[in-house]
Amino acid sequence: MTLPIASVPNGTVTSARGFSAGGVFAGIKTPGPDKLDIGLLISDQPCSVAGTFSQNSIISPTVTLTSSRVGVDKKVRAVVVNSGCANTAVGEQGTTDAKEMTELAATQLGVTAEETLVCSTGVIGVEIPMALMREFIPQVSPKEDGGNEFARAILTTDKRTKEIAVSFDVDGKTHTVGGVSKGSGMIHPNMATMLAFTTTDANVDPAFLQQTLSAAVKLSFNQIDVDGDQSTNDAVLLMANGAAGGAVISGGDDASEAFAEALLQVCQHLAIEIARDGEGATKLIEVIVEGAHTEDDALKASRECASSLLVKTAVYGRDPNWGRIFMAVGKAQITLDESKIDCYVNDIQIVANGEAIAYNIQSVVSALGSDEVRLRVDLNVGNGRGMAWGCDLTEEYVVFNSAYTT
Amino acid sequence: MTLPIASVPNGTVTSARGFSAGGVFAGIKTPGPDKLDIGLLISDQPCSVAGTFSQNSIISPTVTLTSSRVGVDKKVRAVVVNSGCANTAVGEQGTTDAKEMTELAATQLGVTAEETLVCSTGVIGVEIPMALMREFIPQVSPKEDGGNEFARAILTTDKRTKEIAVSFDVDGKTHTVGGVSKGSGMIHPNMATMLAFTTTDANVDPAFLQQTLSAAVKLSFNQIDVDGDQSTNDAVLLMANGAAGGAVISGGDDASEAFAEALLQVCQHLAIEIARDGEGATKLIEVIVEGAHTEDDALKASRECASSLLVKTAVYGRDPNWGRIFMAVGKAQITLDESKIDCYVNDIQIVANGEAIAYNIQSVVSALGSDEVRLRVDLNVGNGRGMAWGCDLTEEYVVFNSAYTT
Repeated sequence: MTLPIASVPNGTVTSARGFSAGGVFAGIKTPGPDKLDIGLLISDQPCSVAGTFSQNSIISPTVTLTSSRVGVDKKVRAVVVNSGCANTAVGEQGTTDAKEMTELAATQLGVTAEETLVCSTGVIGVEIPMALMREFIPQVSPKEDGGNEFARAILTTDKRTKEIAVSFDVDGKTHTVGGVSKGSGMIHPNMATMLAFTTTDANVDPAFLQQTLSAAVKLSFNQIDVDGDQSTNDAVLLMANGAAGGAVISGGDDASEAFAEALLQVCQHLAIEIARDGEGATKLIEVIVEGAHTEDDALKASRECASSLLVKTAVYGRDPNWGRIFMAVGKAQITLDESKIDCYVNDIQIVANGEAIAYNIQSVVSALGSDEVRLRVDLNVGNGRGMAWGCDLTEEYVVFNSAYTT
Repeated sequence: MTLPIASVPNGTVTSARGFSAGGVFAGIKTPGPDKLDIGLLISDQPCSVAGTFSQNSIISPTVTLTSSRVGVDKKVRAVVVNSGCANTAVGEQGTTDAKEMTELAATQLGVTAEETLVCSTGVIGVEIPMALMREFIPQVSPKEDGGNEFARAILTTDKRTKEIAVSFDVDGKTHTVGGVSKGSGMIHPNMATMLAFTTTDANVDPAFLQQTLSAAVKLSFNQIDVDGDQSTNDAVLLMANGAAGGAVISGGDDASEAFAEALLQVCQHLAIEIARDGEGATKLIEVIVEGAHTEDDALKASRECASSLLVKTAVYGRDPNWGRIFMAVGKAQITLDESKIDCYVNDIQIVANGEAIAYNIQSVVSALGSDEVRLRVDLNVGNGRGMAWGCDLTEEYVVFNSAYTT
């Protein structure tokens, strides 16, 4: 019996009870309307915490410090984030600065530095302007409705904020899961992603918390692609403070199932919004691979397809060039039988049994013009199903990344 | 004692003794000056043959047929190639058509279909126009100086032909290795590449032939990238007819070493020319990773760097954004110590011990403006060295691949 999960109107990272957040503009990024570049997130009670982090061999000292403070035996209270500077590849100074950022935030929030996490995103190879941190972190005043400020404070080249919250009831108590993320470029996460912060007032067993987060990340952030590049600063965090007053959630019951499903919905929404808002993108590409030998095959093939530059440019140009979809699926080197493959663009079938069928080209061109393009590939060799999300590749991506240091 | 290897002026695939080639325009591609779309290559004596082929799970029936005719126990005489149509994802008809192409070529050349190989390149999902094949294959008359015609006949979106030959002397007998290739888009080969045909008049033991080709492909075609996509039709072939009259080359002596080095030079030249002529490219990017823990680490890291869209766009925009180079090297997930990394752009050092050093930005911007940009990364953790080649990513790549079915 699955518990119903409801969307929270204007949901954000502070929709879960007991979380507050806020942001300020310090001048790390170039100024602009509504721009913020330092954010604080705080729980009024200690939280269990789970996280997944970049698998790049070169990682930011903020990731190293934060991951050392995440684990089943750890409790945290707060997160400080800055955008505009990644604090990466700057030598030992990076670790010193990351630690000082948590001290500044802890002092402002009345918690300890050890229970404060830190994330940075922006240009690699430039030191954090600590003078600005010392001046502006003390100016951030978290509020219960400050989720959107926090969402704005973590953006870099993103065009809009990414926020969501969903809720479910257990024994008359409402449990909420909220989250924010940022993305844009250098997006092809591997067991982690760019920055995403999720919160819940559910009372979750720490081991189950990490297990549930890892499972959700596998089906969300790890299935998106903007440009095949993997950031040095990727981090997804999940804080659970138990403020909903419910019983412990530790797996094996309806509440656990609902919590896992709610978290998956939050992570998939945040991941899809990152793909939709990829640098230079005009549309979201959703790839569904079904009938695969295994779920892992389907996940791999769908992601290869969502990551292929030739698929991305074909969708941008509304070119029903399904040969590129075949190439990309085959690149995944999974089990398949070419003569069994069916292909659909927004539910219009264009390939049956591995060969083109007579279809109305104009309707497919028109389907490719919509804001969301769904490519569905049925391999017809098993029951494995997987989804991935990407965006189209446009001239603007090239202009953007050749003309600016980002 | 290494034997000296000399460049052959205007060298091509027919520079090795006993090989002839030719081409014709049949109308499979859109017409244009100097355009040809069917090519024949023939040896006047039976050849030992080696090959490497696409590792994509979906491969062209021409690849399947050709690979079945390549092996240590096989002899071949000829190759027929068409451009403009990949003969891929067209069902059983693809196999029928590939076989008939070898029959048509065999009849024209006076050899058997079984000793004739076939390759196709072009749009996926469209049947080969066999009526044109039946009319035009009989019109091709291979000549000893027909290498350039053959080189033109295999091009698709390439802007120029890719040809080379080198030679070395053993006991007074000149041995020549020649080759042609084509590339352009869908270029990120895995244990194979787009089309490349290499020939030699050396008398090479078949097992040594395959071993030498595989080793050369690993350090050439498998180290280039245009767009991260892997074709369904990739093939590299090497035919050895022994016409130089030399002793058998089977490894373990100076002649074998010279042959392997000559083949490597031919393969690297052809691979680099594919990278340089990538769709929309304005410059060649050469990445050298040295001081790596192992050679494989260096090969992997250099290729990740040459494949990164953010590195490609930074080079296009002359942006000395070395953080992207760090990100790309780290993405390879190899053994490294960030605090030991040195980075150079065309020999100008920009990073020492993992941190930016004071350098003249204008000289680096100027270096990034040259036709060939060399990015060198010294990891300083071992003796492994590897090279890879890519091209910049420009608006033209996007326009090209969104506006046309290619």
